[in-house]
Parts: sequence; C-alpha cells; structure tokens
Amino acid sequence: MDIAKELLKGNRLALSKAITAIENEYPEATEIMKEIYPHTGHAYVLGITGPPGAGKSTLTDKITRAYRAQGKTVGIVAVDPTSPFTGGAILGDRIRMNELTLDAGVFIRSMGTRGSLGGLSHKTADAVKAMDAFGKDIIIVETVGVGQSEVDIVKAADTTMVVLIPGMGDDIQAIKAGILEIGDLYCINKSDLDGADKLVREINMMLDLDSFMTDWRPPITKVIASQNEGIEELIGTVEKHRAYIEGNGELTRRRTKRTRDEMLDILNSGINNFVKGQIVDSGRLDEFVEKIRAHDTDPYTVVGGLMDEMLKK
Amino acid sequence: MDIAKELLKGNRLALSKAITAIENEYPEATEIMKEIYPHTGHAYVLGITGPPGAGKSTLTDKITRAYRAQGKTVGIVAVDPTSPFTGGAILGDRIRMNELTLDAGVFIRSMGTRGSLGGLSHKTADAVKAMDAFGKDIIIVETVGVGQSEVDIVKAADTTMVVLIPGMGDDIQAIKAGILEIGDLYCINKSDLDGADKLVREINMMLDLDSFMTDWRPPITKVIASQNEGIEELIGTVEKHRAYIEGNGELTRRRTKRTRDEMLDILNSGINNFVKGQIVDSGRLDEFVEKIRAHDTDPYTVVGGLMDEMLKK
Repeated sequence: MDIAKELLKGNRLALSKAITAIENEYPEATEIMKEIYPHTGHAYVLGITGPPGAGKSTLTDKITRAYRAQGKTVGIVAVDPTSPFTGGAILGDRIRMNELTLDAGVFIRSMGTRGSLGGLSHKTADAVKAMDAFGKDIIIVETVGVGQSEVDIVKAADTTMVVLIPGMGDDIQAIKAGILEIGDLYCINKSDLDGADKLVREINMMLDLDSFMTDWRPPITKVIASQNEGIEELIGTVEKHRAYIEGNGELTRRRTKRTRDEMLDILNSGINNFVKGQIVDSGRLDEFVEKIRAHDTDPYTVVGGLMDEMLKK
Repeated sequence: MDIAKELLKGNRLALSKAITAIENEYPEATEIMKEIYPHTGHAYVLGITGPPGAGKSTLTDKITRAYRAQGKTVGIVAVDPTSPFTGGAILGDRIRMNELTLDAGVFIRSMGTRGSLGGLSHKTADAVKAMDAFGKDIIIVETVGVGQSEVDIVKAADTTMVVLIPGMGDDIQAIKAGILEIGDLYCINKSDLDGADKLVREINMMLDLDSFMTDWRPPITKVIASQNEGIEELIGTVEKHRAYIEGNGELTRRRTKRTRDEMLDILNSGINNFVKGQIVDSGRLDEFVEKIRAHDTDPYTVVGGLMDEMLKK
C-alpha cells in the first residue's frame, strides 16, 4: 500500500499505518511525512491538558460529540507521557470512547512514550499532521498532566484548554504555576463539587497577576462533562479564541513558531541518530565510558574531541 | 574566585555558584565540570519521585534529618519540571525546609525548567556531581510528578523511591504504570488515610505481574512523614537496596549506563548548539521556515540538506 497516497485519499487504514510508522520510527515515516506535508494546515488543533483525574477523556468525548453535531469531522490524539514503557496505560480511558470509534467521522489514536520524550512531542505533532492531511476538521490533542512534557505536547495545538477540578490539594499551586502560561481557555470540570467557585477565584487571581496578558483574557468555563453540562458554552469559547487569533495574526505567528521548533527538532533528532551511528555502533562509546569511569578522562574532554572529528567547522 | 577549586575545598558559596553556572549554562560551567569530575562518585544518590500532593518535600525533610542524626552530610536537589517558565513554583515547599538550611551539613538547591527539559535532567545530574565533589555523603534528588521528564531526572539516582498516597483517584492507574519500572522502593505516605492498605495491595498486584522483576522485590513502606512515623524503617530499606546493588554489581552497571547516557547527552547538546549557532544566528532558519510555511519545501528535505552541509560523513 502506498500509505501517503492512500491517506490523502481518505483511507482510514492508511492513516492508522502512517501513525504506526511515526510512532515506531519506521524508516518510511520520513517519506510519508514529506509527501503529506504540503496537504497540512487546514485542520484546527485543540489541545486539552490538565492533571490526572480531571476528567479529560470524558470531556474530550463530549466535545467531540458536540463538534460532530455541527457536522465537523474530528481526530483525537490521546497522549500519555506518564507511561514511559508500557504505552498502554491510557487504554482504560480510551475504552470509554468506544462508541465514538464506530463513527466514521471520528478517528482516535492513543500514543504512549516508547522512545524518548522529546520524541513523543515530535511524534504527536506528526500524528496531528497525518490527521490534518487526512482531512479532519478539528484535531484534539489530549494529554495527561501538566509537566514540561505535556507543555511540549500541547505546542502542537492552536488553542490550548487547561482542565482543572475543584479540591486538588496542596500542589495545585505548583501545577497552576506551570500551566498559567499555556492556557488560552480554562475549563473547571466536575464543577458541582465543593470548591469550584474558589478555584475560579484562584485562577482569576493568577490571571490578574499575569503581566504577559494580551487583549485575550482566558475565559473560565464551568462544566460537568459526565452530564454534558456546559459543553456548548465551552466550545463557544474555543470558537471565540479561534476567531481572535485568526483575526489578529496570532494564529499565523503560532504556526510559524511551531514550524521553526519542529524544524529544529527534526534536525536535532537527525543529528542524534548520526552521532549514535558513528560512535555507538562502532563500540567507541563503550571505550570512552570505561576511560571516564576510570577517571582517565571526563565526558567534556571526550565530547570536545568528538565534535572536532564529526563537524565541518 | 576559582569556583572549582573552592568547591573542592568545601566552600559552600563556590558550590552555590557552580550550580548557578550549571543552571544558567554559563560558559565556565564546562570548565568547572571538567575539574570536579575526577572527584565524583563517592556520594550515594537517592531519587524521590511521585505525583503532586504526595508530600515528597516533607518526606525529604524527615529523611534528611534521619541521615543527619547518623552523622551523614546531605545534599538536596529539588527539581520542578512542572514549572516551565517561572522556575519558582516549588518555593513554598522549600520554605518548609528552612530550618534545615541552617544546618551546615545540609545543602539545598531548587532547580526549575529554565531551558529545555532535556536540559533539566542533564543539569540535575551536573548539580548532583557538584554536591558529590563537594563531599556530601547522601544526595537526594526530589522531583514532582511521574512523567517521562521525572523519569529522566531520577536517572541520576542510585536508588529510586516512589512516593504515593492513598486515594489518588482514577488516573492512579496511569501514574502507576509509568513508575512501576523505576521504583526500587515504594513509600506510602499519609498512610493513616483511608485506602492505604488497598494501595499496598494494588502495588503488590502490579509487582506480581512484573515479568522483569529481579531478585529484588521493591519493598513497600507505610509512613506518615508529617509525624515522622516510619522514617527509620524507610531509610532501612534504602540501605538494604544499596547493599543489594553494591553486592551484585548492579550499582556499577547503573553508574556505567549513566555515564554512557550522559556522554551522549553532552555530545548531542554540543552538536545541537553548534548547528543552531550556524543556522539560527545567520538567519537561515527563518528563510527555511518561510519556505516551509509556503509549502515550497518540507522540514525533512531541509534537514537532509543541512546535515550534508554540516556533518563529516
């Protein structure tokens, strides 16, 4: 099967194969990406992030249904950076979305951390591009947590929604400090729980203190995803943000920055692979390591020599 | 001040300056690392990780006091990867440890994400080396969360302790799947809360399913850090694990692997910096980005060309 061509024709199996190639770093992945790249840029990408337990999967489910009711097709990339080895931890959540998988207008894909994490954000971005080239109108990137890894992952998004729930305990301060800068929208899920209004006030206080605030003040929407309450209003805020950043050139700036970061990313991983090929496969790395361990040299000295050897300066 | 020499003499200000140089990637950082490198390898490094709210700071505080009571000196590197921009979110927790900072046998340093995250794990490892060369007996690397970034950070540790608390909600499955492979020890903090025994059972079930299990079955210790309960027993498990991996050669294997990974890390970042210097500073990157955005080319093609240009193949 010519995966790229079939994907561009709207073949779901080809899309699935393309993402598998991306995820597993199959050699053909680069060729696929080259071919589909010119066909990207049409989908609107919504990032959804927040701490574990915030109900992001249920929310994604409801948002997807709402978009489907508007006649839009939806791609979902559910990323789980908390699972470095198994890659399958998010499965339980995915099963809840089973019903959606029967809808031909929806394509769902989970991604875990198989390789490096830098790899994960890069692979997520490529999976988004595959769904984009495939023709999805809206692509949702859902990721667990609010660490740096998740921040990197939601960089693939045009609009980023941060989901919180009332009563998250002591470390909410730490969590919130990390996400303040990335949220275009805030969603308080499970807003029937005690403390929802307190959480709204706290976020507002933080937004008041945000000296980088533009004209756009991130709206805070209270929902109860499990009961489908507040979802229409929430989607309304996504559309409002989209109109805002399309209108003032911010969307173009964000996408340009993303292209720039992606190019550097691809360059870095290309170089890393080259380096590994040169010194790992030849067994030289092990020799260096032995000398360093014996304190005959140090890694900085070794690296200086290797750089002279490998780079055209 | 000759930072490296003064550090090796036990000058606290020099240690602080060295870590600042590491954190901010000052040019002298490499020279400092070269000079102190031969003096590393004496400290034992304990990694402490777990989800937000698990009480890791309080636990670190109590563990530190217990080691001090044994006459050992302690270095603490508290890393907060959830804070990509401010770098200061963990401050509240640090303040709790204020009393310890008055003890000359303890050195505490917080690190946030100023640059890239890959950078953070590398900088953490270098900060640990600085404390090691300085002469600390035990170095504790404490990090928030259990994502890939935290996994990378605790790679600097000889023994890794995973801290959990009862009743963490739905996503505990996801969290646990990610940490199963990295925990040498489990600590159930706040074990007076409902669900502590259930959590112990769940962890045991997961351990039963772990087909990679060696002779070492990670012990699960229940503590109440805030009341200093169970800390002695917990430290006993650290010492037991240390004796185990020292006895069977695993410690040497771990440290050798760490040296290997570090060397590749330093090499990759050196080459990446070179490449960025070449294409970012010259403005060529922006030209490429423009062409890619106009769909005149794609990042993969551009990167292929750049690699031919810069690397000796």
